[in-house]
Amino acid sequence: MKKALAFDIGGTKIYSTVIDEKGEIISEIDKFSTPKTLDGIKDVLKKQVSKYEDKVDLITIATAGAVNNENTAVIGSTGNLVKGYFTLDFQKLSSKKVFVENDANCAAWAEYKIGASRGTAVSVMLTLGTGVGGGIIINNKLLKGKSGAAGEMHFKMYPDKRRKCTCGSYDCFEIYASGTALKLDAEEALETHDVTTYDVIAGLKSGDKKMTEIFNRWQNDIIVGIKGLTNLFDPDCVVLSGSMAQFVDIKKVEKEVNEDLVVSPTSIRLATAGNYSGMIGAALLGMEING
Amino acid sequence: MKKALAFDIGGTKIYSTVIDEKGEIISEIDKFSTPKTLDGIKDVLKKQVSKYEDKVDLITIATAGAVNNENTAVIGSTGNLVKGYFTLDFQKLSSKKVFVENDANCAAWAEYKIGASRGTAVSVMLTLGTGVGGGIIINNKLLKGKSGAAGEMHFKMYPDKRRKCTCGSYDCFEIYASGTALKLDAEEALETHDVTTYDVIAGLKSGDKKMTEIFNRWQNDIIVGIKGLTNLFDPDCVVLSGSMAQFVDIKKVEKEVNEDLVVSPTSIRLATAGNYSGMIGAALLGMEING
Repeated sequence: MKKALAFDIGGTKIYSTVIDEKGEIISEIDKFSTPKTLDGIKDVLKKQVSKYEDKVDLITIATAGAVNNENTAVIGSTGNLVKGYFTLDFQKLSSKKVFVENDANCAAWAEYKIGASRGTAVSVMLTLGTGVGGGIIINNKLLKGKSGAAGEMHFKMYPDKRRKCTCGSYDCFEIYASGTALKLDAEEALETHDVTTYDVIAGLKSGDKKMTEIFNRWQNDIIVGIKGLTNLFDPDCVVLSGSMAQFVDIKKVEKEVNEDLVVSPTSIRLATAGNYSGMIGAALLGMEING
Repeated sequence: MKKALAFDIGGTKIYSTVIDEKGEIISEIDKFSTPKTLDGIKDVLKKQVSKYEDKVDLITIATAGAVNNENTAVIGSTGNLVKGYFTLDFQKLSSKKVFVENDANCAAWAEYKIGASRGTAVSVMLTLGTGVGGGIIINNKLLKGKSGAAGEMHFKMYPDKRRKCTCGSYDCFEIYASGTALKLDAEEALETHDVTTYDVIAGLKSGDKKMTEIFNRWQNDIIVGIKGLTNLFDPDCVVLSGSMAQFVDIKKVEKEVNEDLVVSPTSIRLATAGNYSGMIGAALLGMEING
């Protein structure tokens, strides 16, 4: 059976393991804090490659940042990684084929192959974490766009410049639907900076009225965003993943999204491919694309 | 050379002509007011079919309303056409193959084959008319979604229910970017119902300050919507068609859209396939899909 050495390179952590063509993790999972320099990142990758490359058929990398259509390089800068990260020549890491794809796209692919959107032809996956990631599958293929960067959840929630997004633009879905957004919602509602995402979740769980209101505003913004995505893509399902997804009332979101669509109803689902879906999706997609 | 009898069925008019596989109109263009009854519509179609079906290889229909993935039927109701329109059995009109597709999708296909988006793999087309239509082409195929209705421009411009859309939902792009929207913008700004879309355009042309402000708000909403679409689809170009597109400052829109994207820049273009792009696109797509 084919095997891939899989990486997940994020702003905080780098994970690595070996995954077979069924999507099974067949080795221990190595974890590293993401080095603050490009050379540091390269060293982590090289060390793992030299340890495993003889045992695998290819190297597959899920990474923060947009990846080109050839799946060879990161294009443009990514806020969470070191400057110049996009200059990293992944192919030089190994004599074997190195396959690279955006982490949210990889996670969407894992959900499609072995998770919540399995068996569907058209799906949208949203990772609700510190930021918001997106991966869109259309007719069993990842949506990549002209340069490879499609599926960015930076459509606008207001037209009149209210809240600056991490991307430098204003009022993107990301800055209303992320964990960061929930903190910002709370700051605005309570007129203080002394409140965290965790405080809102704790208040929601204990039945605090104000915190529940703040959470519901945040959740409503997610509903409104998903309505728009559903009218655009007419997906079989929308999958929610990431650390914030567990707090979302999936049934309520599904009911409200389907209330006034132009297209036929969609299904809202929690992700099921697990915490390592980035690595799993990278491995499965890399093995599929590279025969 | 292959030929199609092409129709364009809209809420006000039905057009019909014969189009060859190069997209050339090779017959006179017949025009009818759209009958107010289903039988009336059928009679118009049947009359044209009996006149032309011996001379063509298939019948192709661009129609208002979402069309299924099999290109055989309209799914669900369409606000602008008679009740029960979706029950029309198009295949019964002729012994030849009858191919049906949504009119905006057809127009997008015409732009892709012979118009403004020719030679691009990924494009978004917006028809800015009384309403707003959308057609999206991804890797040289129309985006259809699970049921065939994808590409509906009903993503939200506000999350908090300000302006009711013709679809029954609130704050859809359509109700901020259409000709109707420009009238609504003017009504709000001038606090009167005694103002038309035409008044705003006339004021814009004569340099009236207030009307120019109103127009700019409308154009800004279009810019904001296109930014979101561009980050989602990463298109080579966005094509603007429809009766309102001529008033848009294409260069300004392109400049502002590209100011703060997450993906690489896109190109904004005026449609060039002409007023009969719906029929041309239906004919070209129908001939392509049906060999």
